[in-house]
Amino acid sequence: MAELMPNHPMLSGGYAPLQMECDVADLIVEGEIPSTLNGTFFRNGPNPQYAPRGNYHWFGGDGMIHAFRLEDGRVSYKNRWAKTVKWKKEREAGRSLFGAMNPLDRDESVQGMETDGLANTNIIWHAGKLLALEEGHAPFELDPYTLESIGPCTYADKLKGPMTAHPKIDPETGEMLFFGYNVDGGLSEKMSFHVVDREGNLTRSEFFDAPFASMVHDFITTKDYIIFPIMPLTGSLDRAMRGLPVYAWEPEKGSHVGIMPRSGTVDDIRWFTSDAAFVFHPMNAFENGEVITCDVCQFGQAPMFPFADGRPGDPAKSYAQLTRWTMDLSKDTNAYEVEIVDDRKCEFPRLDERYAGLDYRFGYMACDSRPKEKAGLFNSIARVDHQTGKIQMHELPLGHATNEPIFVPTGENAGEGEGVLLANVYDANRNSSYLLVLDAENVDSNPLALAHLDHRVPFGFHGNWMPA
Amino acid sequence: MAELMPNHPMLSGGYAPLQMECDVADLIVEGEIPSTLNGTFFRNGPNPQYAPRGNYHWFGGDGMIHAFRLEDGRVSYKNRWAKTVKWKKEREAGRSLFGAMNPLDRDESVQGMETDGLANTNIIWHAGKLLALEEGHAPFELDPYTLESIGPCTYADKLKGPMTAHPKIDPETGEMLFFGYNVDGGLSEKMSFHVVDREGNLTRSEFFDAPFASMVHDFITTKDYIIFPIMPLTGSLDRAMRGLPVYAWEPEKGSHVGIMPRSGTVDDIRWFTSDAAFVFHPMNAFENGEVITCDVCQFGQAPMFPFADGRPGDPAKSYAQLTRWTMDLSKDTNAYEVEIVDDRKCEFPRLDERYAGLDYRFGYMACDSRPKEKAGLFNSIARVDHQTGKIQMHELPLGHATNEPIFVPTGENAGEGEGVLLANVYDANRNSSYLLVLDAENVDSNPLALAHLDHRVPFGFHGNWMPA
Repeated sequence: MAELMPNHPMLSGGYAPLQMECDVADLIVEGEIPSTLNGTFFRNGPNPQYAPRGNYHWFGGDGMIHAFRLEDGRVSYKNRWAKTVKWKKEREAGRSLFGAMNPLDRDESVQGMETDGLANTNIIWHAGKLLALEEGHAPFELDPYTLESIGPCTYADKLKGPMTAHPKIDPETGEMLFFGYNVDGGLSEKMSFHVVDREGNLTRSEFFDAPFASMVHDFITTKDYIIFPIMPLTGSLDRAMRGLPVYAWEPEKGSHVGIMPRSGTVDDIRWFTSDAAFVFHPMNAFENGEVITCDVCQFGQAPMFPFADGRPGDPAKSYAQLTRWTMDLSKDTNAYEVEIVDDRKCEFPRLDERYAGLDYRFGYMACDSRPKEKAGLFNSIARVDHQTGKIQMHELPLGHATNEPIFVPTGENAGEGEGVLLANVYDANRNSSYLLVLDAENVDSNPLALAHLDHRVPFGFHGNWMPA
Repeated sequence: MAELMPNHPMLSGGYAPLQMECDVADLIVEGEIPSTLNGTFFRNGPNPQYAPRGNYHWFGGDGMIHAFRLEDGRVSYKNRWAKTVKWKKEREAGRSLFGAMNPLDRDESVQGMETDGLANTNIIWHAGKLLALEEGHAPFELDPYTLESIGPCTYADKLKGPMTAHPKIDPETGEMLFFGYNVDGGLSEKMSFHVVDREGNLTRSEFFDAPFASMVHDFITTKDYIIFPIMPLTGSLDRAMRGLPVYAWEPEKGSHVGIMPRSGTVDDIRWFTSDAAFVFHPMNAFENGEVITCDVCQFGQAPMFPFADGRPGDPAKSYAQLTRWTMDLSKDTNAYEVEIVDDRKCEFPRLDERYAGLDYRFGYMACDSRPKEKAGLFNSIARVDHQTGKIQMHELPLGHATNEPIFVPTGENAGEGEGVLLANVYDANRNSSYLLVLDAENVDSNPLALAHLDHRVPFGFHGNWMPA
């Protein structure tokens, strides 16, 4: 008998996990889905199967995949858990056995057991594989049509250690570039860099040390460079064993950004530094000669994490703004410039992925314009035009909250930004969610379509598109 | 692409249909489910797959089965549509093709097509078969574990014509007794009576004429008699062809109750009469010598149906009260006595089925005590003690609405009324439903358990228990 979820903000309202796995053949659609939009929008997010063991953290829930399949204007839907080792052991037991974030907090029956992680952060389609990603482990493969779990994908056993949830796919070569952190098993400064080619062969693996052990959520690639942002959300098992936070905000360590030429090796990484700030997600980066520009959603400090002594972080600094970093490799200084592009609260930045790593014009992100009735997460979607500086905003109705918006181009030959934005939106009034389809060139217009679910898709992390 | 459901009270709030079919392995349970309660609670109700064609009526939606499986204190859940001919043709078309109640209102593509009905009213377990029932057609069989649709069950082709959704199972012989109306295909006074033995063989079929053509929803059986209540909710295709209601309330025709000795034939039916009143559901009936007592939930007039000229019915008369009828076969008069037992608004009466047709003490029903915030249907559950006249009430929290409660005995040797009541309850605050488990001997106490779903089980009709 499954126990009640505890009263926790990340287990309530739009965050409340589902217990059911379902299929919907033909969603009710308001408006019209472009009939050329054929493919599947996958979403991933934390959805604890049982009431969590110990302190819950949003990052610690079992991954659940939501798939919206679009075909000739019709939408079908399916959700399934990623059936990891942890999920299976807990299903057997009928309760949680693994601590959500603290590796020391485990039931006796699973002490020392190696797992394949939570598979709860991102879901990508590369080289014919659907992969649920979570930065502490190898990718977790699922069948793209049934969403049945296949298991860890280690690229013919060549992938050693974990993989970030945010690989970058080079739009020209089709290569997937990614890194790992804590790669020697414990919490450490040990990191890796890997490349998987468009056919799915792991072709490059290198290892290096970051300035310190920290949570490294994402990175950026350009045509010629790899960019590793290391921010002082430090990880320490020693600290955890003293009863203090596993991960904590240590601003005195500053922010560090490593830049590696793709033609070089990890030995060529040059570290730039600045005052402590935190970034989960970049929008994009590109180079112009030796000047590198990175657009990121930058927080004053890491949100949702305490200081090293256990004091909670400052909520007033726990929001992000679209921020541009500039590193000039031709100069002697290792300081980088930081400029706030827009003062809106924002997160989950994306772009037309065909411009990943290239000079680009349009970015998209979820924003918080502080509505009267906040339903959680973000209540508007923005298109940023870096060329004109103009921002188009789509404000959702009261009580609605959006997840990350993703861009899908109208077709292979569409110009940059010609396509739609897809997001799944929670409607607190109905306690259920819908797929929102916006015209990416007219984000501030009425939606093209809403495809309704009967249930809530709990607030999650990331999604991507698999063309039909 | 499925179209929006129209704005209709029977398609909104707790009535709003689901589009998804799902599985839940292990529901979150508050309280404790008795570990001896092993079996499945099936529910059936209307759940239109697509926005209805023409005028919708609550009785006209596609049947969806909800199965709560209880085992050692754990609860799993599954819902599936009954995949009838109508359902399949409409799934193919992606829209409604058949009118919800009017047989004349059909898409050209399905004109004249014979169907196997809606299978939306009741769900019973008899002779190793799980049968979804709807009074216009033969039973529709489903797999009791997967809920996959098997199709019409006609008892080796012996069952001719439709079957009521309310057969009675004789607790002593295990026989299933039932009737049909409109048995010659059209709307008519032609009725049937059948018996299927405990092994599933149809052993008796007789045909007779009711006083007039009407909607005959339910009947009653006692140890020695069969009771056919015929009330003036008349059916007329002629009327429908003149653009008037197919079914309409014609009180001038009066109420008629036919009583047939089980040892006799339909030729022995004796018709008793009274002023027009309407009953969907009896609670039970029993005999004492030649005096027959029937407990029913009686309405002043048929709710949800218009008068013959199309005028809407009177909402002030459209509620039921627990009412006792008495027929004395030893007397010359064909009038029957009518006495209101309790003035609460009630419906969906049930009993400890081991006492079906026998002198009994306890009945159960859903009641409407007119709460400040009405979430639809009924907001309380009553246990009626016919011996003491006392009524125990379980009032649900504000915004909660219950469906029909069913009784499950603690074990084979339990005394009358020793067991639990099961009901599925809609919580409008969360737009989702839960399985409510009450101690049937202490209905007014706190629930034994609540097993929570993430989604709404739309208000439905009837349910039954299949022991493990």
